[in-house]
Amino acid sequence: MIERADVEEAAARVAAVIRPTPVHSADAISKVVGRPVLFKPEHRQRTGSFKIRGAYNRISRLDPTTTPAVVAASAGNHAQGVALAAARTGIPSTIFMPSSVSLPKLQATRDYGASVELVAGTVEDAIVAALAHAEATGALWVPPFDDPFIIAGQGTVGLEIAVEAPEAEVVLVPVGGGGLLAGIAVALAGTGVRVIGVEPAGAACMRASLDAGAIETLAGVATMADGVAVKGPSALTFEHARALVDDIVTVSEEDISRAVLLLLERAKSVVEPAGALGLAALLAGVVPGGGPAVAVLSGGNVDPMLLTRLVEFGLTAAGRYLVLQVVLADRPGQLAALSATIAELQANVLSIEHHRAGVGLALGDAQVRLMLEARDQAHGDQLIEALTVAGFTV
Amino acid sequence: MIERADVEEAAARVAAVIRPTPVHSADAISKVVGRPVLFKPEHRQRTGSFKIRGAYNRISRLDPTTTPAVVAASAGNHAQGVALAAARTGIPSTIFMPSSVSLPKLQATRDYGASVELVAGTVEDAIVAALAHAEATGALWVPPFDDPFIIAGQGTVGLEIAVEAPEAEVVLVPVGGGGLLAGIAVALAGTGVRVIGVEPAGAACMRASLDAGAIETLAGVATMADGVAVKGPSALTFEHARALVDDIVTVSEEDISRAVLLLLERAKSVVEPAGALGLAALLAGVVPGGGPAVAVLSGGNVDPMLLTRLVEFGLTAAGRYLVLQVVLADRPGQLAALSATIAELQANVLSIEHHRAGVGLALGDAQVRLMLEARDQAHGDQLIEALTVAGFTV
Repeated sequence: MIERADVEEAAARVAAVIRPTPVHSADAISKVVGRPVLFKPEHRQRTGSFKIRGAYNRISRLDPTTTPAVVAASAGNHAQGVALAAARTGIPSTIFMPSSVSLPKLQATRDYGASVELVAGTVEDAIVAALAHAEATGALWVPPFDDPFIIAGQGTVGLEIAVEAPEAEVVLVPVGGGGLLAGIAVALAGTGVRVIGVEPAGAACMRASLDAGAIETLAGVATMADGVAVKGPSALTFEHARALVDDIVTVSEEDISRAVLLLLERAKSVVEPAGALGLAALLAGVVPGGGPAVAVLSGGNVDPMLLTRLVEFGLTAAGRYLVLQVVLADRPGQLAALSATIAELQANVLSIEHHRAGVGLALGDAQVRLMLEARDQAHGDQLIEALTVAGFTV
Repeated sequence: MIERADVEEAAARVAAVIRPTPVHSADAISKVVGRPVLFKPEHRQRTGSFKIRGAYNRISRLDPTTTPAVVAASAGNHAQGVALAAARTGIPSTIFMPSSVSLPKLQATRDYGASVELVAGTVEDAIVAALAHAEATGALWVPPFDDPFIIAGQGTVGLEIAVEAPEAEVVLVPVGGGGLLAGIAVALAGTGVRVIGVEPAGAACMRASLDAGAIETLAGVATMADGVAVKGPSALTFEHARALVDDIVTVSEEDISRAVLLLLERAKSVVEPAGALGLAALLAGVVPGGGPAVAVLSGGNVDPMLLTRLVEFGLTAAGRYLVLQVVLADRPGQLAALSATIAELQANVLSIEHHRAGVGLALGDAQVRLMLEARDQAHGDQLIEALTVAGFTV
């Protein structure tokens, strides 16, 4: 087991490379959630996530004269963390990435000085290729979470929270393989602060493993939170979670997208879906207690194109973006009547399509497909009711 | 003229309500720009912009027992600043907004406790209605920039920059009516730091006024930066700019959208178009010198729906989002050949539409409309060349 002293030693080491990310309170979001919410903004960390901490704590211990190179496999944050940590240590790095990786992530990893190899298929295929490369060349394999130095490095986030938010009642930690969770749990053990891990329902390997009392490997994962789309924890992270973590909760894809949207709108922050899991749990109401809750915003590396789709999904999940199909009699004045009803309730029309022929349309009927912006879920429901009352089939 | 002492007095007053926004360096963006870039993150200020500073410095001087109410007109940040400042002072506020205002801005203003009146038409129409309301009810009119206390309040940003970034060579300030610019210029007068204002080319009223040697009122404004879409400065802001500001530069809409996108991607920050003007000027290469440049990120209040369109516009401006029309012979294998060429150059296909009939299409030709994601402008050009070489008409 990793000890607090290991994390303290890591903190002294990573101080040379990390950027300060002081915890701050989030007033507008606290109002929405109904309890004091604080953020640990690791999305503003160097490389855009906490991953630089563990990678640097591992790689900076290597001797550049005896370690010819390091190798890792990742579709995201671990890639950038290893690339920068290796560059700072003066060791060449090769990162294997799935060929479907987004161009900005590929570019960022190269910008930090890594040599990137693209592998057809998934992250698993990239891992196989990376391990073969390590075997063939003698490069050192840097795992994403299954390593004591990496876990101790991620744990430095927990030490900082203890100093920056002494009032914290609970700390919410995104869980993929469990490295960040294990490290923070070690750092906060014995302080009285509860540590709760958060997983997407579609990739809840730690929850499943704790329930089974042994490591469970998921057959597959399904979540927009690619940063935590991991099939199973390692023995090391599982044992730490079992011994030190208070609970693991799960959230839906809708919860995650609402959290991402809220962070954009109210905290003016770009947080990737995995990084928004803690806030998603607060929004979902699955975090017990009413005292100050610190959500670790673990990363901000999200492709801008994906972000635009997330915003639309988040607005829909929050009931603020409505797509309605309305059937109306195909005669003059019907569209005007429809528009008037919408205008009365002060909803914004984003787009409108009008069809005279379509599946399930009777002769003489027309169909209108509307995209509307509403204030909130209640306003959206009110709109649907008003249209129904006005005689339209919604 | 406003003096430094006025700004210092304002600083003591607004300390009760503002959130600390320490200047921070931006490593990745410095690399892109080619000089040290620092940000003053006022988009994370309470109410999402610096406007709370001036509004609170004005309104908190009022006596709630003798001032029955305050009134303002705004489509954006000034509305939220006045609403919160009035609530903190214990005075009711009424804000007149154009009815086209986005729902999130309307909602945020109401959440801060203001009573909102929607007015058909533009901000100018809202101002007319607000002044009539002030006349009729005795409510005190709070202008957006034409007021010494408001200018002194905005100037507190400059005092903070002097302390937080003593190495600054130049400070870049977004300019609408010129209140923030005038205040910062007063705060930094005599320190040796150059103060440069930045305006969109489509709303460059301060540049035009300085060129003319007198206040010029623009016939119209055209810019996505709604926060600075102002037709003319006031006598007060103009005189301060003329006496204390080193220069005013202008930027294009493409520069602005690239800056918004870069802030999202690399600084993980949601900054509205007006707030990104300083970085836009650095990207456009219109800021002389090579020393540390502080860009004031003045606000972050941007509608999520608008943000998604901005991202697409920014990607297009950066040459990373290509929309191509390709004509090819309508026979089997042509689409496969096209796809292979694109795949070889590692561009991502975002969407594809295939048409057999269309304007300007010869019989036997087909048209494909492609949306592609490229790494950068050079990569996009390379793609177009490869397709042309492969025999396609792009």
